Amino acid sequence: MSVSAPGSSRTEHDLLGERDVPTAAYYGVHTLRAVENFPITGTPISAYPDLVTALASVKQAAALANRDLDLLDGRKVDAIVQACEEIRAGQWHDHFVVDVIQGGAGTSTNMNANEVIANRALELLGHDKGDYKHLHPLEDVNAGQSTNDVYPTAVKVALQLAAERLLQAMDVLREAFAGKAEEFADILKMGRTQLQDAVPMTLGQEFAAYAVMLEEDRARLAEACALIREINLGGTAIGTGLNAHPNYPGLACSHLSIITGIPLAVAGDLVEATQDMGAFVQLSGVLKRIAVKLSKTCNDLRLLSCGPRAGLAEINLPPVQAGSSIMPGKVNPVIPEVVNQIAFEVIGNDVTVTFAAEAGQLQLNAFEPVIAHSLLKSIGHLSAGCLTLAERCVTGITANREHLARLVGQSIGLATALNPHIGYEQATAVAQEALTTGASVHDLVLAKGLLTQERLRKILHPDNLARPHTRAAAAVEA
Amino acid sequence: MSVSAPGSSRTEHDLLGERDVPTAAYYGVHTLRAVENFPITGTPISAYPDLVTALASVKQAAALANRDLDLLDGRKVDAIVQACEEIRAGQWHDHFVVDVIQGGAGTSTNMNANEVIANRALELLGHDKGDYKHLHPLEDVNAGQSTNDVYPTAVKVALQLAAERLLQAMDVLREAFAGKAEEFADILKMGRTQLQDAVPMTLGQEFAAYAVMLEEDRARLAEACALIREINLGGTAIGTGLNAHPNYPGLACSHLSIITGIPLAVAGDLVEATQDMGAFVQLSGVLKRIAVKLSKTCNDLRLLSCGPRAGLAEINLPPVQAGSSIMPGKVNPVIPEVVNQIAFEVIGNDVTVTFAAEAGQLQLNAFEPVIAHSLLKSIGHLSAGCLTLAERCVTGITANREHLARLVGQSIGLATALNPHIGYEQATAVAQEALTTGASVHDLVLAKGLLTQERLRKILHPDNLARPHTRAAAAVEA
Amino acid sequence: MSVSAPGSSRTEHDLLGERDVPTAAYYGVHTLRAVENFPITGTPISAYPDLVTALASVKQAAALANRDLDLLDGRKVDAIVQACEEIRAGQWHDHFVVDVIQGGAGTSTNMNANEVIANRALELLGHDKGDYKHLHPLEDVNAGQSTNDVYPTAVKVALQLAAERLLQAMDVLREAFAGKAEEFADILKMGRTQLQDAVPMTLGQEFAAYAVMLEEDRARLAEACALIREINLGGTAIGTGLNAHPNYPGLACSHLSIITGIPLAVAGDLVEATQDMGAFVQLSGVLKRIAVKLSKTCNDLRLLSCGPRAGLAEINLPPVQAGSSIMPGKVNPVIPEVVNQIAFEVIGNDVTVTFAAEAGQLQLNAFEPVIAHSLLKSIGHLSAGCLTLAERCVTGITANREHLARLVGQSIGLATALNPHIGYEQATAVAQEALTTGASVHDLVLAKGLLTQERLRKILHPDNLARPHTRAAAAVEA
Amino acid sequence: MSVSAPGSSRTEHDLLGERDVPTAAYYGVHTLRAVENFPITGTPISAYPDLVTALASVKQAAALANRDLDLLDGRKVDAIVQACEEIRAGQWHDHFVVDVIQGGAGTSTNMNANEVIANRALELLGHDKGDYKHLHPLEDVNAGQSTNDVYPTAVKVALQLAAERLLQAMDVLREAFAGKAEEFADILKMGRTQLQDAVPMTLGQEFAAYAVMLEEDRARLAEACALIREINLGGTAIGTGLNAHPNYPGLACSHLSIITGIPLAVAGDLVEATQDMGAFVQLSGVLKRIAVKLSKTCNDLRLLSCGPRAGLAEINLPPVQAGSSIMPGKVNPVIPEVVNQIAFEVIGNDVTVTFAAEAGQLQLNAFEPVIAHSLLKSIGHLSAGCLTLAERCVTGITANREHLARLVGQSIGLATALNPHIGYEQATAVAQEALTTGASVHDLVLAKGLLTQERLRKILHPDNLARPHTRAAAAVEA
Repeated sequence: MSVSAPGSSRTEHDLLGERDVPTAAYYGVHTLRAVENFPITGTPISAYPDLVTALASVKQAAALANRDLDLLDGRKVDAIVQACEEIRAGQWHDHFVVDVIQGGAGTSTNMNANEVIANRALELLGHDKGDYKHLHPLEDVNAGQSTNDVYPTAVKVALQLAAERLLQAMDVLREAFAGKAEEFADILKMGRTQLQDAVPMTLGQEFAAYAVMLEEDRARLAEACALIREINLGGTAIGTGLNAHPNYPGLACSHLSIITGIPLAVAGDLVEATQDMGAFVQLSGVLKRIAVKLSKTCNDLRLLSCGPRAGLAEINLPPVQAGSSIMPGKVNPVIPEVVNQIAFEVIGNDVTVTFAAEAGQLQLNAFEPVIAHSLLKSIGHLSAGCLTLAERCVTGITANREHLARLVGQSIGLATALNPHIGYEQATAVAQEALTTGASVHDLVLAKGLLTQERLRKILHPDNLARPHTRAAAAVEA
Repeated sequence: MSVSAPGSSRTEHDLLGERDVPTAAYYGVHTLRAVENFPITGTPISAYPDLVTALASVKQAAALANRDLDLLDGRKVDAIVQACEEIRAGQWHDHFVVDVIQGGAGTSTNMNANEVIANRALELLGHDKGDYKHLHPLEDVNAGQSTNDVYPTAVKVALQLAAERLLQAMDVLREAFAGKAEEFADILKMGRTQLQDAVPMTLGQEFAAYAVMLEEDRARLAEACALIREINLGGTAIGTGLNAHPNYPGLACSHLSIITGIPLAVAGDLVEATQDMGAFVQLSGVLKRIAVKLSKTCNDLRLLSCGPRAGLAEINLPPVQAGSSIMPGKVNPVIPEVVNQIAFEVIGNDVTVTFAAEAGQLQLNAFEPVIAHSLLKSIGHLSAGCLTLAERCVTGITANREHLARLVGQSIGLATALNPHIGYEQATAVAQEALTTGASVHDLVLAKGLLTQERLRKILHPDNLARPHTRAAAAVEA
Repeated sequence: MSVSAPGSSRTEHDLLGERDVPTAAYYGVHTLRAVENFPITGTPISAYPDLVTALASVKQAAALANRDLDLLDGRKVDAIVQACEEIRAGQWHDHFVVDVIQGGAGTSTNMNANEVIANRALELLGHDKGDYKHLHPLEDVNAGQSTNDVYPTAVKVALQLAAERLLQAMDVLREAFAGKAEEFADILKMGRTQLQDAVPMTLGQEFAAYAVMLEEDRARLAEACALIREINLGGTAIGTGLNAHPNYPGLACSHLSIITGIPLAVAGDLVEATQDMGAFVQLSGVLKRIAVKLSKTCNDLRLLSCGPRAGLAEINLPPVQAGSSIMPGKVNPVIPEVVNQIAFEVIGNDVTVTFAAEAGQLQLNAFEPVIAHSLLKSIGHLSAGCLTLAERCVTGITANREHLARLVGQSIGLATALNPHIGYEQATAVAQEALTTGASVHDLVLAKGLLTQERLRKILHPDNLARPHTRAAAAVEA
Repeated sequence: MSVSAPGSSRTEHDLLGERDVPTAAYYGVHTLRAVENFPITGTPISAYPDLVTALASVKQAAALANRDLDLLDGRKVDAIVQACEEIRAGQWHDHFVVDVIQGGAGTSTNMNANEVIANRALELLGHDKGDYKHLHPLEDVNAGQSTNDVYPTAVKVALQLAAERLLQAMDVLREAFAGKAEEFADILKMGRTQLQDAVPMTLGQEFAAYAVMLEEDRARLAEACALIREINLGGTAIGTGLNAHPNYPGLACSHLSIITGIPLAVAGDLVEATQDMGAFVQLSGVLKRIAVKLSKTCNDLRLLSCGPRAGLAEINLPPVQAGSSIMPGKVNPVIPEVVNQIAFEVIGNDVTVTFAAEAGQLQLNAFEPVIAHSLLKSIGHLSAGCLTLAERCVTGITANREHLARLVGQSIGLATALNPHIGYEQATAVAQEALTTGASVHDLVLAKGLLTQERLRKILHPDNLARPHTRAAAAVEA
C-alpha cells in the first residue's frame, strides 16, 4: 500500500491545513501525516493482523454501545459495523499503513482505524470516500472514545489473540517432550550438576522435566493473560470518562467480549488503568521467563548432542540441513540455535518494554506503541520457535543408549549411593581412589570388602538409583 | 568475624588435606576454603539474616524428619534442633562468613550452615568443636540432604520472609497515597497526556491512582510468593531423591512449614524443580514491575513539584534536607530521587537474575547464589524505599490549590468537553483561536454564541468535568 | 520472492537428499531448507540491503584472491565477479530469502549468497541454473572460505556501511541543534537541577549542550567503527586457516578494501577473532550510549514544551499532526516521542546482543545472526530517528522569550549569585524569605540594605549570570 | 560509626532548623539528615575508599586553586589541605557515613566531605568541631564549588583509581592464559563450532585466544578511562561557572592532576559536561564487554573440564574445595562459576547505569550516586574475579593429552582437510560413511583409493592441520 500512489486524489484537512490523499486510499489526512512523520522501521501496523482485527473489534463494540445509548444514528452504526466485520475478516488490512514505531501514544493507529472504517462505511452508505459530513472518522467512528482508551484496549485484545496461539504452540512442544520422556523412560544415564558427573537418572526423567517446565510456564502465561483482559474502554482521555455516557463502559465492554469471544472486564479505577502499564510489564516478564527456560532447554539439547565423536553424544538431533559450507558432513543443532536467538530477542524486548513503561508520565504513557510492537513480536516469535522446535527437532531426537549405560557403569558418581551404607568420608576415599587409579567404584568397594556383592548389586540397581523419592537403603535392607 | 583470627586453632580435613581452623570459629574447613576461594564482594551471607534464619529452619526440619524416620539418633537431633533454634533467635550469625557471591551453587553456604550447626551442637553435647566423630556436619546435619535441595529451599524461605516485609511496606505507602487522595479529593486540576494539557481531573484522582497501582502490585507480589512456596526438599542431588527416604520430603516439608509458619508444598516433579529457576525469574519480574511503577510515580511527584517558581508547582514535597551546597534555600526532591535509584537497581538486578537463570545447565543451576543475592537486595531496598517514600515524602505533601484552579480556568483542554455539544471540528476551531489569541475557551464560546451561558456553566462544572464515567452532556441536558 | 512459487522446477541435492527448487529461483537446496527450517520473523535478509551488498563484496574479494593465487579458473572468477557486481548494484536482492533470525551461525546466509552467485554466474557462462558441475556454490564460490570467516566479515562491512549513514544523520541533527543554539544565544532562562529552579543560563547554552553531546557521540561511534574494520577473513572454519592459502587472508582483505572503499585489516590472531564478539558488543554499547542521550534530549524537549498553558511552556515544538482523536486543538510532541521509543528499542537490542555474545561457545559464536539483526536494526532506526528529529522538530522550534525572562526575574535562584557577596548563610535567609513571602530576591536585598542598587544590578546582569567560567564578583568589583 | 552514638553532643543548624550532632562526629547536620533520609542499603560511602580519597583530593585541589586566586585565607587553606591529606592517608573514612544510594545528585556525599574536612580543619586550627564561624563547610571548604561539579569529578577520579587496579588484574589473568598457551602449544585437539566437532587445532591456540581477548579488552578499558579523565570542575551549579573565578577551572584541574597523579582535563563545554553521563555509560558498556567475554571464557573452561568420566574431560581445573555435601569426591568448577556470577552482576549493573543515565533531566542528572555505586561495584568485583580466576584456577589447569589426541584421530572433522584434494561432495560422502559405519576418515580414504597413504599422511599431519594461515595443500604438494 503505497502512500504516494499515482492517480487521482481527494482533498482532506486537519488542524494543520489541507492535504491531497490518493482516491484509492481508505485512510485519510491524519494517517497520511503520520506516515510522513514516522518513517522509522518500514513495517506498517498491518504486520500485526491481530492488532488490526482488535482495532476493528473495539470500533464495532463502541458503535454498538453508542447505538444502545441512542448516541449514534442506526444507519451509521450499521455501516460502521459492516466495515469492521470486513476488516476482521481480513479485508482492508493493507490500508493500515502507519509505522509500528510511532509517536503519539497510538493516536495515529487509532486515527488510521477511524479513517479506514469511516471511508469504507461511507462507501457502504453510497457516499464517496472523504465525504465526512455523512459519517465522520472522529465524531462518529470515534464517538465517545479517545485513543487513550481505544488503543490500549485494542492492544490487549490483540495480545490475547496472539497469546492463545502461543499457549497452543507451547502445548505442542510440551507434548513433544512428554512423548520423548515416555520413549526414554528406561534409559539410564548420568545426571550432571555444575557440568560434573553427579548421580544416575533416566533420560526420560530429563525430558519429562522439560515438559513440566513448559506446563508451568503455560500456566503462568495464562495467568498473565487474565491481567490483560482488564480494559479501560470508556475512560476516554485520562480515565475520567469525559464525553462518554455513564453506561458506555459496561456496554462497550460487553459488546467487545461478545465480538472477540474474550471475557473482558472494565477496570475498577479508570484513571489508574489509563496510565498503568503494569499488565504489559507483567506479561513481558512472563514471556521473558518462558524465553529463559526455552533457552536453557535448547542449551541442554545442544550440549547433550555435542559430538558426534568428541562430545557428550548422548542424544542425536535430527539433521535438517547441511551444517557447514566448508566442513563436509557436519550437521549442526540449528533448530535449538534459532530458538536460543528468539529467546535473546525476547529478553531484550523485555528491557525495551521496561524502559517504555517506566517512561510514562502523569495521566498517560506515550510509549505504548513500542510496548505493543515488542510484545507482539515476542509472542509471535516464541510461537514460531515452539512449533519449529517441536516439529523439526524434538520429535526426531534419538538416544545413544549403550553409550549412556557405559558412562553410568564407569561413573564415580555411584559412590554417592554408598553414603548411607559406608558413610560420606569412606565413600570419598573410594571415589578419590577410583578417580586416581581409573578403577570402578564397584570393583573398589568389593576389593576393600566394604559391602557384599549382593548388597552392592541392590544398591546400584537402576531402579534404586533413579527412582525419585526412593532411598536405596530401604530397598536394600528389605 | 575474622577468618584469620589470632589465637589457638584446631585441625580439620577435607578431600584436599588438612587445614587449621581458629578454635573460636564455629565454621570448619569447608567454610574456610570457601572464604579463601571467594574474596569477591566482602559481604558475608550474614548480611541477609533472613537467609541464615532460613538455613537453620531447613536444617532443623531435616533433623526432625530424620528422627521421625529413625534415621538420626535422638540426642543428635536434639542438639541440632537447639543449635538451629539459637541461630534462628539471632545467635552465631557472624559465623556465616562465606561471600554472598560464590561459586558452587550454594554448596559453601550449605557447608557453612552444616559446620556452624554441627560445632554448636557438639558443644551442647559436651564435645569440642571439630570433634566430628560425635556429630558430623555432613553425615548428621546434612543427612538425607544435598546442597541442591537445601539451598534453594532456604533461599525460598528467606525470600518469603523478606517479601512479607515488602508487602507491609507497600501497604504503608499505599495508605499514604490513599490518605492524600482523600485530602485532595476536591482539588480540580488539569490532567496531562504526553505532557500536554489534556482535560480536568482532581488531584485526589491523581493520588488515588498511585494507591490503586500499589494495591495491584501488592496482589501480583503475593501471587509470585505463592510460587516460591513450592520447594524441592528431598530431591537431594538432582531430584531423584537418591539417599533420601521416600517419606522424607513430605515430613521435612511439614516440619519446615511449622517452624517457619509458611505453608510450603513439595514440587510434583523434583527433577524439574531442582533445575528450575522459573519461580525466581517470575518473582524478579514482579519486583521489576513494582520498581517500574514506583519509579513512574516518583517521576510524577518530582514533575508536579517542579519549581518553586519556574515549574509546574502543583504540589509541594516536604523539605527533608538542604538541597545544595551552592544554591541557598534550594530544596530538592531527594526522597523520590532515592526511590528512583532503587528502582533502577532492581531493574538491573532483574537482568542479572535473567542471565543467571538462563545459564543453568542440565540438572542444576550453578548460579543460584547471585540470584539469591540479587533478589534479597531488591526486596530489601524496595522495602526501605517504600517506607521512606511514605514517611518522609508522601504524608507531608501539600497542594497549591489556587494555582491549580487558575490553570484549569485558562485551559484550552476545556474545549474537549464541548465536543458532544458543538462537534470536534468546531471545538478544534475554538481551541486554535484560544491558543492564538490568548483568550479563554469559555469567553470564545460565549462570544461566538455557540452555547448559552447556562449550558456552558453546566458543561464546565467541576462535577461534570472530573467525575469518572460521567457524561457531561447527560447532566447538562437534564 | 515466494519459495513455493508455481511453475517448473529443477532438482538439487544435499547431504539429506534431493529437493525440487523452482526454476526461477537463483538460490538452491541449502537455501530452500533454511527457509523451511526458520519460519520465525517473516523478514528475509534482503531487508538489510547493506548485508546483501556486503556478502557480494566478500565473495567477489574471495574470488579475486583465489584468482591471484591460481586457485580458481579465470572464467569462473569473471562470472562470479560479474554476478557479485550485479548484486552490489541492487539486482537479485529478492533471492536472499532466508530469515533474519536463523540457526547455524550464518551458514544459511552464506549458503544463500553462494547459491545466488553460483546460479547467476552459471547463467552468465551460458549454463542452466543448478548445473553446478560447471561452477559450484561451495567448491568455487565458497572456495577457501567458511561461513565462520565470511559471515562475520560481511556483517562488519554491512555495519560499516550502515554506520556511515548514521554518522551523517547525527551530523544533521547536531547542526540543527547548533543552529538553534546560535538563534537562542541571548535568551536568558532559568537552569534547573533536579527539576528545581537553579541558576540562570541562556537557552542557547541549553541547545548548544545537545549539539556537543551529539558531537561526542559521533566521535565514539567513529571509534567503535574502527574496531569492526578488523576482520577474520581467511581464518576459515575456526581461525586456523585450514584449506586457505597462507597468502589468501592478506589478498582477500585487500580486494575487499578496494571493493568496499573501507580500510579493512586482518586480525592478528584469527582463532581469537573467529570466536570474538567484542567489537559487536562494543558497537552495541556505543549505540546504546547514543540512544540514552538522544532519549534524554527528547525528554528535555518534551518537558520544555510542556503546556501550552499549564506547563513550563519555554519552547514550542512545530506541530506535525493533530494530537488527539478526542481533544480538539491538542498538539503533541510526537517526534521526540518516536525517538524515545527508538532509544528504548536500541537499549533492548543491546541486551539481546549481550546475551547472544555471552552465549558463544569454544571456537565460534552460533548466534551472530541475531547480533547482526539487532545491530542493523538499531543503526537503521537511529538514523531515521536523527533525521526525523532534525527535520520535523528541532529546526522548527521557537522560544517563548518573554515568559522565560519573567521566570528569571522572579527566581529565587538569583540568591546563588549573592553567595560571594553576602555569604551562603545570609543568602539562604533571603531565599527563604522570598519563598515564604512571594517577594523577589532583588527587592529583599535592597530592602535589607545588604547591597547597593548599583552592585546588585551588576551582579544580576545577564552577562554575569550565564557566561560560563565567569565569576560575577570579579566583574562587579572591577 | 554510629550516628546515634551516646555521649555529649553539639548543636548545628541548617535551613530546616537545629539538630544535635554527636560531639565525636566529624560530620555535621547535613550529613546527619542525609543518614536519616536514606536508610536504604546500610552500606556507607566509606565502602568505596577510592571515592573518599577522591573527594578529599578534589577539596584539596579546590582550596589550593582558591589560594592561588586569593579567594581563601592561607591559614584556612593549610588546615583544609592537611585535613584532606589525612583523609587521603586513610584517616576519618569512618565518618563518611551517608548511604551509597542516596537522593540529591551526590549533594549529601559532598556535604559529608565538606563537614568532615571542615571539622577536622577546625581542630587543626585549635577550634571546636562545629565552630563554623572560623572555617565553614560551605563558604570555605566548598568555596567556588557545587555538588554538581565536585561530585562527578570525584567519582571520575575514584573510577580511575579503581580501573587501574582492574587493568592490573586483567593483566595478571592475561599472563596466566598466555602461560598456559605456551605450555599447551603442541597439544592437538578437536576444535568445535556450534558444539559439534569441527577441525583440529592446538590447546595452546585455544588458550592463546583467551589471552588475546583480555589484551583487547584491556585496551578498550584504557580508552574508556581516557573519557573519564575529562572533568567539569569549575562549572559549579549548571556549568555556567557562576561564583567561580574564570581562572579557577584550570587551576583546580592542575592541582587535582598533581595530587592524584592522573592527567585530567577540563571539558570544553561545561554546561554539557555537567549533565552528560556519556563517559559513565561508555565505561559501563566496556565493563559489560569485559564481563561478557570473561563469562564466555569461564563457560568454556567449565565445558572443557566437564567430567571426570562422562564429559569432554579435555582439561582439569585445580580442585580448590570439596564440591558437594552429598556426592563424595565430587569437585566442581567453583572459580569459573563465581566469575560467571560476577559477569552477570556487571551486566545487570550496566542496565542500572543505562536507566539512571537516561533519567537525567535538563541541566543535571540526579541519579549519579547509583551510577557511581554500580560502576565501583562492577570494577571492584571484576578485579577480584580476574585475580581469583588467575590464581586459583588458570595457573593450575592441566590437559588430558592422550584423550585429546585420540579424539582427533577418530574425528570426522578431518574430512574438511580433504576438500582441496577430493572436493566437498566426495569429502561429504566419506564423512557420512564414517559417521554411519564408525570407521575412521583415514581408513575410508585409503580403502577407497582416493589418496595415497603418503599424501594423506602429509595432509593430516598436525603441523598442517592446526597451523594458522597455512594451506595443507601447499605443504602436501611441496
